[in-house]
Amino acid sequence: MKSGDLVFLDTAEGSELFHSAEVKNHFWSVGRYFETQLFLTYCGIASSVMVLNSLAIDAPEDPQIYPYTMFTQENIFTHNVLQRRRPLDVEMGGNTLEQLADILDALDVEVETYFGADYDLNRCREILIESLQHDGKRIILDFNRRVFNEEGAGHFSPVAAYHRAEDRFLVMDVARFKLPPCWVKAELLHDALVEIDPTSQKSRGFLTVAAKERSGTA
Amino acid sequence: MKSGDLVFLDTAEGSELFHSAEVKNHFWSVGRYFETQLFLTYCGIASSVMVLNSLAIDAPEDPQIYPYTMFTQENIFTHNVLQRRRPLDVEMGGNTLEQLADILDALDVEVETYFGADYDLNRCREILIESLQHDGKRIILDFNRRVFNEEGAGHFSPVAAYHRAEDRFLVMDVARFKLPPCWVKAELLHDALVEIDPTSQKSRGFLTVAAKERSGTA
Repeated sequence: MKSGDLVFLDTAEGSELFHSAEVKNHFWSVGRYFETQLFLTYCGIASSVMVLNSLAIDAPEDPQIYPYTMFTQENIFTHNVLQRRRPLDVEMGGNTLEQLADILDALDVEVETYFGADYDLNRCREILIESLQHDGKRIILDFNRRVFNEEGAGHFSPVAAYHRAEDRFLVMDVARFKLPPCWVKAELLHDALVEIDPTSQKSRGFLTVAAKERSGTA
Repeated sequence: MKSGDLVFLDTAEGSELFHSAEVKNHFWSVGRYFETQLFLTYCGIASSVMVLNSLAIDAPEDPQIYPYTMFTQENIFTHNVLQRRRPLDVEMGGNTLEQLADILDALDVEVETYFGADYDLNRCREILIESLQHDGKRIILDFNRRVFNEEGAGHFSPVAAYHRAEDRFLVMDVARFKLPPCWVKAELLHDALVEIDPTSQKSRGFLTVAAKERSGTA
């Protein structure tokens, strides 16, 4: 890894990058629902909760804030989700990219799964930017954070902005007890997305999530 | 209330205000730890957790993320805090300004309590701006949100930025299931800070919180 490959958002340089970034609409909605993962294995769950809330998907009841509703890292396990994956499964082993897609697929959203190894750097950058420019889409990355020289390995977090001149993406790290949001060079991010997840034996990658289009007038 | 008195951060106008705001250093650290209040009465607790984490105060253990640490709306009730206020007290009745100051005072921070009624608009604006310009301080507002024409009444939330030309403060509303962060005119905010809290029979106001200065070389 080259030095300067990571710039944290809460530094002078990081906030400057935010100001000059061209693609950052997602930041306002995703950052509004920024979460800390509840368990060390709940990065995908926390990322999903941020994305679902930021898309204003109808949330299950949460007795503690009734009559308001919101997705939490507990109530995201709806009856439909539980048919596929239980809190215990996630607590013990986290999620692979496909397992997280499966959880989201059981909710009221459209999910698309992109394996990092299927896309070269240019195509990967293109898809990420297109999705960031789409107001109705959100992105959850599945990356190997060891590639960033960080402690840990596989990790999920939403991405919320892109800086063209610097060719950096803003990763909203849900391990907030560990690291702030961070601007990562596209090339380094791609390196972290193509790594093989030892659990699935497939590459990491990312998910795009969008509200389901309603057909008919029901 | 005049129209245009509230501008939500996740609108085009709100994010424009953010870009042209002069005083916004706190946003990066406070926003990094943005929280949703766990109960309808936990606005002061959620605000305190944001402020403590953003000041990097040593946090109690949280078994779920061991060996990392972080303040949560559960572990903030340390042994010292419990001598003054229990989760049940807060769940049932929330906190007055002085009760929240008392909770924070039991932790490793210096707290100053400002009753809104003791300060006119100009002095209030001055103290808030000075505190926002101080990297080692944070601010928690205690305001009556009915003055903003919002559903509810007494509410705590951190303030994270100030826009001079518009004379607006950015309130990071912890009732995230209800409202986004919001730019409020200083005058309207002052109106909401001078209101009497029926529980304490004193005015609302705000707290400033700073890490304790260490004496000696221990």
